[in-house]
Amino acid sequence: MAKPDDVPILIRRTHEERILATLRESGPLTRAELERRIGLSRTTLSDITSVLLRRGAIVERRPEEGPRGRGRPAVRLALDPASGQFLGVDLGHRRVQVAVVNAANEVIASGERAYIPEMSWSERLEVVFGLIDDATAATGVRLGALEGIGFGVPGPLGSAFGDESRVPPRWQGTRRDKVVALIRERVAERFEAPLVLDNNTRFAALGEAVWGPSLDTDSLLYIRLSDGVGGGVVAGSRLVVGSLGTAGELGHITVDPRGARCWCGKQGCLETVASAPAIRARVAEGAAEKMVVREAGAATGRVLAAASTVMDPTEVVVAGEVLRYRGFLDAVRTAFEHEVLPTGVRTRLRASTLSEQAGALGAIAAAFHRSPLLVGYASWATSPVRVADRLPA
Amino acid sequence: MAKPDDVPILIRRTHEERILATLRESGPLTRAELERRIGLSRTTLSDITSVLLRRGAIVERRPEEGPRGRGRPAVRLALDPASGQFLGVDLGHRRVQVAVVNAANEVIASGERAYIPEMSWSERLEVVFGLIDDATAATGVRLGALEGIGFGVPGPLGSAFGDESRVPPRWQGTRRDKVVALIRERVAERFEAPLVLDNNTRFAALGEAVWGPSLDTDSLLYIRLSDGVGGGVVAGSRLVVGSLGTAGELGHITVDPRGARCWCGKQGCLETVASAPAIRARVAEGAAEKMVVREAGAATGRVLAAASTVMDPTEVVVAGEVLRYRGFLDAVRTAFEHEVLPTGVRTRLRASTLSEQAGALGAIAAAFHRSPLLVGYASWATSPVRVADRLPA
Repeated sequence: MAKPDDVPILIRRTHEERILATLRESGPLTRAELERRIGLSRTTLSDITSVLLRRGAIVERRPEEGPRGRGRPAVRLALDPASGQFLGVDLGHRRVQVAVVNAANEVIASGERAYIPEMSWSERLEVVFGLIDDATAATGVRLGALEGIGFGVPGPLGSAFGDESRVPPRWQGTRRDKVVALIRERVAERFEAPLVLDNNTRFAALGEAVWGPSLDTDSLLYIRLSDGVGGGVVAGSRLVVGSLGTAGELGHITVDPRGARCWCGKQGCLETVASAPAIRARVAEGAAEKMVVREAGAATGRVLAAASTVMDPTEVVVAGEVLRYRGFLDAVRTAFEHEVLPTGVRTRLRASTLSEQAGALGAIAAAFHRSPLLVGYASWATSPVRVADRLPA
Repeated sequence: MAKPDDVPILIRRTHEERILATLRESGPLTRAELERRIGLSRTTLSDITSVLLRRGAIVERRPEEGPRGRGRPAVRLALDPASGQFLGVDLGHRRVQVAVVNAANEVIASGERAYIPEMSWSERLEVVFGLIDDATAATGVRLGALEGIGFGVPGPLGSAFGDESRVPPRWQGTRRDKVVALIRERVAERFEAPLVLDNNTRFAALGEAVWGPSLDTDSLLYIRLSDGVGGGVVAGSRLVVGSLGTAGELGHITVDPRGARCWCGKQGCLETVASAPAIRARVAEGAAEKMVVREAGAATGRVLAAASTVMDPTEVVVAGEVLRYRGFLDAVRTAFEHEVLPTGVRTRLRASTLSEQAGALGAIAAAFHRSPLLVGYASWATSPVRVADRLPA
């Protein structure tokens, strides 16, 4: 039986756990920020954090050179950075991004490298491992406390797919049973930490939700327009995977039923109009760039408006190479606001602030697996369902 | 400290709770069905259910007249039906549906009544209460064990909306602060049970997911085409509400940018093409019904394909009055399959099997609040957020 004296200790434990969990999810925070997040009184918080500091579970981070004359910049509290590391890999069609964070959620190494799309998966993995070695060597990081690895790959995780003859060739090419097995095998040869695999654009959506400027995003619609057009959905405070792992494939929503043939087998998909290669091709054919970009933006805005009417997200995030075209985001916004459900509240539509790093950071968030957005996620991502398990014969 | 003897008792408790929870969610099940759902051995299950039967927590249901000559039909186990009741109300634009279930998840009273759209909310509530009285009297049900009430109302729950001048008049007319207060007050005058309020079409989507033919649906896209066109989304094993409560408003996705003006303020919404009044109006103007219905079905199929590409649901359910038009569902299916993401797996698209009762049954599921689809749901539905709490000024 608990003695009366035990109760404060139990409560203290709960508070400690909440503080550690908050720092784990959000990275370093000032005491004032912690106070607001957790809702403890200043006295209780200070009492508990000093115990945690004494124990070495957390550390104080002095701000580097703060802006002068605006009062002393506040000290931040962080988890002991040495207590864990997470590695994120975003394996795109033409380049790979890696990032390493420590337990305090600080990026301690990162890098990017291009490869040619003709490379085999095996060759790409060699590029990835070389990049990890170089990026960590550059900042003197040793991956001695690796606790998890997230690996994003392009295209849906196809092991849940059905009749192979009906799956578009580009997805067959990256079909997952073999690729997943290969990645697992090679990663296991080099690292001991558990591996989480998923679509790289879905990871980027998760990265925006977890690492983006809005804290506690419980619903988000994400689109990335580069070589291809992909996306991801956070809804009901969950990263949505979908029944076959294809949730968020916004690039394959039809925008012109009489439009160009898409590699997916359909006609007039958003990707045939608004990917970087599609825009370049039309300009090369002699169309005015300004008009091509405006039309691509308008088509993207219409797709985002339709998807927002389905999901009613808190924010809509646009990312990718195509954002470099002047006027593109404005055209997206105009079409979006024209076609989105009128509710009297403007849905926040913004450009990504994480840009190319979103995928690697999202992969880390998935490997980290402590975001509430990931409840119920692991079982799918770590051991993809097979279609035979899910559907009647 | 637990004695060694205690351990089997603890395990037994867990098994008991799982059995009760399963019967609570699914309604009466045979022993074989329970065995499959829970994964206990026949011996353990039989051991535990006999204790539950002896204690009166569950009862045996003998099948009424089974088909002859096909073996003895199996006895089903159910929660003691007298241990609780739940009331569901689907308050549509022109009619109200009510249903009452007992704790065994059996519908013990139900009914429907039309009213004229010009009626005030106060008058509509009188119709609702009269219908509840008549429906329960007809089957001799006394609402003595009422544990929860679910109330579905048309249109989004507007208390989260913003600038009133930008909200379409039809939604202003059913704006919720006043309507919600009125319903709460009148219901509290008559019943003591807690009340859950939400959009009636969202409840219908929940009803299809919980009461429909597919057990354990973790993702579902629902559309109802009657006086208006609404819908609902279950994704990531959650009923999706959205940031302002408008998730699933599929009727206001644009299908023709140069189409007719919609009451919502936009142009060419699905509702302007595929609601029952829209179809009737075009036929009255002299268009061939077959063509009008085919076009309405095609537009609906395109919207469902786009929404499915966003969500990747396990199934897509079509409901409402418009299904009565011959050829409508076929036209939906053709357009849907033409534009949905090719994955080699056919997304199950089907007509609702619950038809008009889905909304009331979904409202019950929400009041019941024991479906895993409703984790994280209550706080929103029982005390809607205000826009001022959510958005920066």
